[in-house]
Amino acid sequence: MIPIDEGAWLDTVRPALGSARLARAAWTRVCEPGDKLAAALVAQLGPVEALAGLCHAGSGHFHALASRTLGVDFAALFRFAQAHQVRPLVPEDPDWPAGLDDLAYPPIALWCKGSLSLQQSQERSVAVVGARAATPYGMGIAHQLGAGIAAAGFLVVSGAAYGIDAQAHEGALAADGDTVAILAGGLDRPYPSGNAGLIARIAARGALLSEVSPGGAPTKSRFLQRNRLIATMSRAVLVVEAGLRSGSLHTARLGAEHHRPVGVVPGPVTSRASAGCHQMIRDGGATLVTDTAEALDLVAQIGQHTAVRRSAPSRVEDRLAEGDRAVLAALPIRAPVTVEQVAAFAGVDPAAARAALGRMQLLGLVLRREDRWQKAPARRAG
Amino acid sequence: MIPIDEGAWLDTVRPALGSARLARAAWTRVCEPGDKLAAALVAQLGPVEALAGLCHAGSGHFHALASRTLGVDFAALFRFAQAHQVRPLVPEDPDWPAGLDDLAYPPIALWCKGSLSLQQSQERSVAVVGARAATPYGMGIAHQLGAGIAAAGFLVVSGAAYGIDAQAHEGALAADGDTVAILAGGLDRPYPSGNAGLIARIAARGALLSEVSPGGAPTKSRFLQRNRLIATMSRAVLVVEAGLRSGSLHTARLGAEHHRPVGVVPGPVTSRASAGCHQMIRDGGATLVTDTAEALDLVAQIGQHTAVRRSAPSRVEDRLAEGDRAVLAALPIRAPVTVEQVAAFAGVDPAAARAALGRMQLLGLVLRREDRWQKAPARRAG
Repeated sequence: MIPIDEGAWLDTVRPALGSARLARAAWTRVCEPGDKLAAALVAQLGPVEALAGLCHAGSGHFHALASRTLGVDFAALFRFAQAHQVRPLVPEDPDWPAGLDDLAYPPIALWCKGSLSLQQSQERSVAVVGARAATPYGMGIAHQLGAGIAAAGFLVVSGAAYGIDAQAHEGALAADGDTVAILAGGLDRPYPSGNAGLIARIAARGALLSEVSPGGAPTKSRFLQRNRLIATMSRAVLVVEAGLRSGSLHTARLGAEHHRPVGVVPGPVTSRASAGCHQMIRDGGATLVTDTAEALDLVAQIGQHTAVRRSAPSRVEDRLAEGDRAVLAALPIRAPVTVEQVAAFAGVDPAAARAALGRMQLLGLVLRREDRWQKAPARRAG
Repeated sequence: MIPIDEGAWLDTVRPALGSARLARAAWTRVCEPGDKLAAALVAQLGPVEALAGLCHAGSGHFHALASRTLGVDFAALFRFAQAHQVRPLVPEDPDWPAGLDDLAYPPIALWCKGSLSLQQSQERSVAVVGARAATPYGMGIAHQLGAGIAAAGFLVVSGAAYGIDAQAHEGALAADGDTVAILAGGLDRPYPSGNAGLIARIAARGALLSEVSPGGAPTKSRFLQRNRLIATMSRAVLVVEAGLRSGSLHTARLGAEHHRPVGVVPGPVTSRASAGCHQMIRDGGATLVTDTAEALDLVAQIGQHTAVRRSAPSRVEDRLAEGDRAVLAALPIRAPVTVEQVAAFAGVDPAAARAALGRMQLLGLVLRREDRWQKAPARRAG
């Protein structure tokens, strides 16, 4: 390894040494998202000292980082960011998404585009993620949930990928609600390019975030690191369709590891796109979710639950006195019978049976055919 | 109440007093399924004594039972049963489904049609139940599960209702497997009549059971009591589609109360026919089931699990050394880069990066474009 010349290195990073904010921003260009050694160094020395001293590492990881960025024009990087309305966000900012601090190694800095304040993000937000290879069923549900969660005043966080992510954002925008896309590359280069229009609309109404500096390309490891931000920025993680190898299972797992409640939308067992969802429910730890109210229930405080436990509509039969119900139960489903037969069957006096039948006839529950009685046809099967 | 003349009563029941078996069979005509007082009386006095002494009750429940059956020709009932190849089954028979004895009040006797031995029923059986108002999706799954469970040598128990029940039986028959239908009325009168053909085929290949004596009509309370037999005759209860008011939820609840594992097949959240299934999974206590192996897992003994935990097929990437994987992760998704760029990005020597790229080229994971490298296109999305 060639030692790095301190003077050359300081020339490179000089534009970033003026403030902790700029030094943190520069670090996102120096190291990869989730670089634990870099995060530890910054935490120990502070971002400015750590950046200035990076050239002293004779070899190994820090030497490689310094080599990789030697000669980068950081002043140009900051100008480039500004030209794209991309600004750095650091942990000291009031707007910093506080949920990220639950990570053992939070980002050294983020890049942000858009005017939405993220201050409330930790309290009122749900990550909605899922398969890129989604079905029309899953995309419809993601749109519905995105719209419902946003309409309830919660922030919808996702990754702007094709399929479920995109539909969750679209739903939130359709409800004129708040949504944030966390990208795996620089915010000047929307990825995937087919969602560039959507990503621009998210920037205009909500916000874009990335741990990667402007100009940076999305890579596999950056997608994986990005997932930890989606998982922890939100109060809960909701998965709509996920194959057995879907990256959204990774996001959900990271959420669970950081004590975020995980919700999962089921689907047909014949659909590969739901196989990962079903596996998560079988494995335990994920709650089955069928609608917005149940999704918001994941983030509800005690006493704030929004999902009413589903139950069938109450029926007139349910409000009968016990004696009447016994007479009703004793009536055959098809052929009508006499009052005496019903009475014997129900174990009550014929007079009592006759009175009960009269009451239930008024309620439309039983039918009289001459001197015989039968049950009225049921109003629903099931 | 008019007291019952002991002589008249003894004349009525005389044909049943010859043996405990016939007395038990007669009781199914005297009382309704699940009659706790009758069951307790029979348990205390024995079926013959209890039947003979029933006329001594001056009023109340037992008096009503005696009145209701006074004058019934029990000899004719037994002949009628025989003419329909329907025979009584009593707890003393080796063939008695032992699972029923888990009930606080097991049937006093059952009626049986068909030659299938039920001796193994407790060990190797699964109840498959669900909505009458089923969807094509649910009916397809019920048929598949019925066939799969039967093909694995397990008995498929159900209620011969329209929809899910019928398809579970059909699947078992299609696999030339064992299936039992438990009916809510007498076995001489198949109900529902639209399933008469299916019920006849079940009697020919498997067996029919009922707690109601031949000639008896199905009534609502008999359906409810029938459900407790379906729930406890089997080792596990599997629900395929159930609306929020479906009777199959009742069966599943009874199964759970008697420590039967309960499995539930999910479906689209947009389907009312799956709403009860999803509610059960949310409530806890039911296991989500997507296929036959997972269904049989419900009844597996420790060490006998048949469901392999679903996982994605292993990929060649997963078998790479860590260093090679770092180089692969450092490659951009789209534009090819030089070895030096990859090396700096991955934090390894260029020579090491070159060697790793060569190995991965052989595996088809990376592509060389002149002197630049990029990732090979992914083989599946997700």
